[in-house]
Amino acid sequence: MEKKVNIAVDAMGGDNSPKKIIEGINISLKENKDNYFILFGKENILRQEIKKNKLPESIYEIVDTQDIILDKESPLTAAKRGKESSMWKSIESLKNKKADICLSAGNTGALLVISRLLLNTIQGISKPALAALWPNNKNMNVVLDLGANIECNEKNLLDFVSMGSALYKALFENIPKVALLNVGSEEHKGNEVLKKTFLILKNNNKNNFEFSGYIEGNHIMDGNVDVIITDGFTGNIALKTAEGTANFITKNLKKSLNKFSLLFSYFSLKRFKEKLDPRKYNGAIFVGLQNPVVKSHGSTDAIGFAHSINVCNKIVKSNLIDKIKLHLINIDT
Amino acid sequence: MEKKVNIAVDAMGGDNSPKKIIEGINISLKENKDNYFILFGKENILRQEIKKNKLPESIYEIVDTQDIILDKESPLTAAKRGKESSMWKSIESLKNKKADICLSAGNTGALLVISRLLLNTIQGISKPALAALWPNNKNMNVVLDLGANIECNEKNLLDFVSMGSALYKALFENIPKVALLNVGSEEHKGNEVLKKTFLILKNNNKNNFEFSGYIEGNHIMDGNVDVIITDGFTGNIALKTAEGTANFITKNLKKSLNKFSLLFSYFSLKRFKEKLDPRKYNGAIFVGLQNPVVKSHGSTDAIGFAHSINVCNKIVKSNLIDKIKLHLINIDT
Repeated sequence: MEKKVNIAVDAMGGDNSPKKIIEGINISLKENKDNYFILFGKENILRQEIKKNKLPESIYEIVDTQDIILDKESPLTAAKRGKESSMWKSIESLKNKKADICLSAGNTGALLVISRLLLNTIQGISKPALAALWPNNKNMNVVLDLGANIECNEKNLLDFVSMGSALYKALFENIPKVALLNVGSEEHKGNEVLKKTFLILKNNNKNNFEFSGYIEGNHIMDGNVDVIITDGFTGNIALKTAEGTANFITKNLKKSLNKFSLLFSYFSLKRFKEKLDPRKYNGAIFVGLQNPVVKSHGSTDAIGFAHSINVCNKIVKSNLIDKIKLHLINIDT
Repeated sequence: MEKKVNIAVDAMGGDNSPKKIIEGINISLKENKDNYFILFGKENILRQEIKKNKLPESIYEIVDTQDIILDKESPLTAAKRGKESSMWKSIESLKNKKADICLSAGNTGALLVISRLLLNTIQGISKPALAALWPNNKNMNVVLDLGANIECNEKNLLDFVSMGSALYKALFENIPKVALLNVGSEEHKGNEVLKKTFLILKNNNKNNFEFSGYIEGNHIMDGNVDVIITDGFTGNIALKTAEGTANFITKNLKKSLNKFSLLFSYFSLKRFKEKLDPRKYNGAIFVGLQNPVVKSHGSTDAIGFAHSINVCNKIVKSNLIDKIKLHLINIDT
């Protein structure tokens, strides 16, 4: 029998939880039958949802936690007072090696702070970052940081380069082209941190990645680079702006098409919508930690949450963290 | 006879200039017949393009400038050495009251620095900002800063609030809802500058605008706020990411549709594409200066440049700068 992937799930984090969490687990069973879920949350509510979704008993266990970390709480407050929460307990089970990976759709800042409190970082990395795959015209970009670190210095950005390249190599087995997100492509553009990082990368002689210079927001999806590096503030704004733009356009497309053309384009439009569905890209990983912690978008639905479960399965089965450690390099500053 | 709108055009700035500039002027004649163009650039090349486009002699004059400011030049270098350039001379003609407005598709940073050297700022404003209209589900947002100021403190952001509100009121005659672009909607989110600005705006008792708190990137286009405030680095990345996402989606839409559905959806898709065409929103204004300077996207084409000419016409005819001054307030810090 194949080894199970043990996923510690914070079942209370994010909008409409635990409803979407349990529904998402149910949906994920179509793709992955080798996951085992350790569910952290209010047992009575979880049991109701599990009953509704008829989850097989063999695929889960429940750890009753009555406390919940809210989205509006500051990360430090949450970390101080939340030791009995579903989020804390799910990360703790990863620390105690009861789980292989931890998944939460809750408060991103709190998830990061508690992960850093309970788990070790990879040697040489001071700030773990939130990394995700972003579709482009050719394949996928790895983009980081998407919101873990609001303010970053050049050492942090260089760590992101190293981690992002290692992640890309672990996933796609090619030497990635790496670019820094900036307001222009010329060397004099941007803030001081970017300029310093640019100079270091330009003179870098490591061959784990190829430095492509600066990239502007309108070229993120061109597919000419593989890894895009930015601070967590900018990355978060860029990712969410792309999401909002995609929603705006698909809404307007529907409005623009008359009934006749909607009828004739039904299947191709469905294919189009499916390809660009942001739920398909749900599930970002905190890179830089010794154990894998995955963040689902808080406002995603059951389908989106199911995708983040599939991401967890792939991360564990491909030994992603070990591969990242293997590919990690030190960039001389 | 109606008074002419005198537009000083830096005819050499941006990709494919002056070709697109002259073609754009030609296209703009369909909408506005009351513009008069003072064209700054290499006279011999301009004459060739003008001949090709058969521009009527009555609508333009040429000021021969042999020097060009390049995109790759740093703003300070450009300002130091570029006193004979098409950009400098076009702004200078605005200063000398020979033109009502200045339009350039060239180096944004240089345009700002030279404008600030030659023109006066509105009293109380230390940093002019680049503002533009951004479509949303209901109408349009005013968004600033889109790239003039890479690093901003709370005084700058408050100035942007004041200028953005005044611009919105001048354009739409309503009291705007103002929001700060951030990585979350909760009060503890974001960097220190945003937190300080939030607190000041929360306690503000001026009634020229209504403060709506923070807005995330995915809600920019929802239409629930009217003015969105951000530093120039973040605003530039957000705007360009939205543009890149829109391009990516329309490209994929075309690929997804089969010939049959393309045929049946031809007119509605055309309508859809036209509505979302980024060229229609081309033309951002430097607010905070005593005279209007408009920046066209450097990579736009003749159609996009024609739109920025129409923007110039509207700004002058509506006395926008005077209206902005009228609506400008001081926010107590």
